[in-house]
Amino acid sequence: MELFATKGYEATTVDEIAAAAGVARRTFFRHFRSKEEAIFPDHDDTLIRAEAVLNAAPAHEHPLDTVCRGIKEVMRMYAARPEISVARYKLTREVPTLREAEIASVARYERLFTRYLLGHFDEHAHDDDANDDPLLAEVAASAVVTAHNHVLRRWLRAGGQGDVEAQLDHAFAIVRRTFGTGIGAGRSTAPKPASSPASVSAQGEVLVAVARTDAPLDEVMRTIEQALKER
Amino acid sequence: MELFATKGYEATTVDEIAAAAGVARRTFFRHFRSKEEAIFPDHDDTLIRAEAVLNAAPAHEHPLDTVCRGIKEVMRMYAARPEISVARYKLTREVPTLREAEIASVARYERLFTRYLLGHFDEHAHDDDANDDPLLAEVAASAVVTAHNHVLRRWLRAGGQGDVEAQLDHAFAIVRRTFGTGIGAGRSTAPKPASSPASVSAQGEVLVAVARTDAPLDEVMRTIEQALKER
Repeated sequence: MELFATKGYEATTVDEIAAAAGVARRTFFRHFRSKEEAIFPDHDDTLIRAEAVLNAAPAHEHPLDTVCRGIKEVMRMYAARPEISVARYKLTREVPTLREAEIASVARYERLFTRYLLGHFDEHAHDDDANDDPLLAEVAASAVVTAHNHVLRRWLRAGGQGDVEAQLDHAFAIVRRTFGTGIGAGRSTAPKPASSPASVSAQGEVLVAVARTDAPLDEVMRTIEQALKER
Repeated sequence: MELFATKGYEATTVDEIAAAAGVARRTFFRHFRSKEEAIFPDHDDTLIRAEAVLNAAPAHEHPLDTVCRGIKEVMRMYAARPEISVARYKLTREVPTLREAEIASVARYERLFTRYLLGHFDEHAHDDDANDDPLLAEVAASAVVTAHNHVLRRWLRAGGQGDVEAQLDHAFAIVRRTFGTGIGAGRSTAPKPASSPASVSAQGEVLVAVARTDAPLDEVMRTIEQALKER
C-alpha cells in the first residue's frame, strides 16, 4: 500500500512489491496470481466462509436472514483492517482495473446468494408461479448486496470510523422490514402458516398483517386482534 | 457486427469498420469516441430519455412506478433491434472491455433512479429516520434495475423472441407486490393516511394490512374488516 500511495498503482511493479516485502518475485507469484489479487487477497477465502455460513444455516432461519449473515463475512473482512480498507478504497476509485476486480468479486457473492435463495423458496408454495422464482431470488440477493455495499461505502468514506457491523445490522433490519415480506416465504408474498390464517408482525409504531384472503374472516380478525392486544 | 463476428472484436480496427461503412476514419470519430461506443451507440440518448420520463411524471404516480417506466426506455432500446441486441449480447459475454462498458452504463441508470427516488420520499413522513433514505433509495433502484436486467438477459438468451415488454411489466408487478410496500411511501413502511388508522391492500389471494399500532384498536379492526368484506 505504501508503494502504491507513493508511486501510483500502475507504475508499481511486482518486482518492487516483492523487494519491499523482502521476498523473491517467484514467492510473490506463489501467493498471488496478479497485482490485483495482492490488493484483494481475501475475497476467495471470504467467499468460502460466506458459503459455509449458508450451508450451516439452521432450518428455521429465514433465508433472507441467512444471506444477511453470509454477507457479514464480507463486511468483517473489510472491518478487520480499517486502515488498509480505506487506503484500498481510495486506490480502487482511481484505478479502473481494481474497480473491475472489485465488481467481479461482488458479482460472485451476489450469484452465491441468488443460488441460495432460489434453493430455499418455500416448498409449500404453489407451483404455478415457480417461473418467477429466479427473478425474485436475484432481486432479493441484489437488495442485500446493495444494502451491504451502501453501508460499507459510507463507512469507508468516513475513514473507517464507527461500528460498521451495527450499521449493517440496522440496514438489514430496514431491508427486511421494507422489502422482506414474502422473500423466501414463497411466491405469493405471504408466509403460509399451516394452522394460522394470518401472520402479524409489529416493528416500532407500525403493524403489518399478512393473511390469505380465502381464510375465514373471523379467524383472520381474531388473529390480528390478538396480536395487537399483545403489544 | 459482421466484422466482429468474423474477425473478432479485438482484432477489428476502427479503419476496417469505417471502410466497411464506406466512411472515413475521421467521420467515424465524429460519431463515436471509441470502438466501445460504436457498439452501444444509444446509451447516452436512452439515459436522456429515461431522465425525461422521470421529470415528466404525474404528481400522483408512485415513484417506484415512475422509475419502472424510466427503465422501460432502456428495454425499448434493446427491443427495437432484437438481432443486433442478441449479437451484441454474445459479444459482450466474450469481450471484457465491452462487459465493463455495459456495467458502467447500468451504473449510470441506477444512479439516476436512486437520485430520483431519494427526491421523492413522502414528505409527510417523520424526519427521524431520514438518514435511512439514501439506503432505501439505492436498494429500491437496485431492485428495479436487477428485475430489468433479469428479464433482458432471459430474452437475449432466448434469441430475442417473445414480447419482452410484457415480460418486463410482469416482473415489475412482482417487484412492486413483493418489495413495493413502503418504497416512496415514507420511512416507516406505512402509508400514513390522514383519516384512516390502517391501510389495506389485497392482491390475488393475499391481504396486506399496515396500521399504526398507536391507532385505536377498534378503528384498525373496523378498517381491516371492511376491506376484507369488500372483496
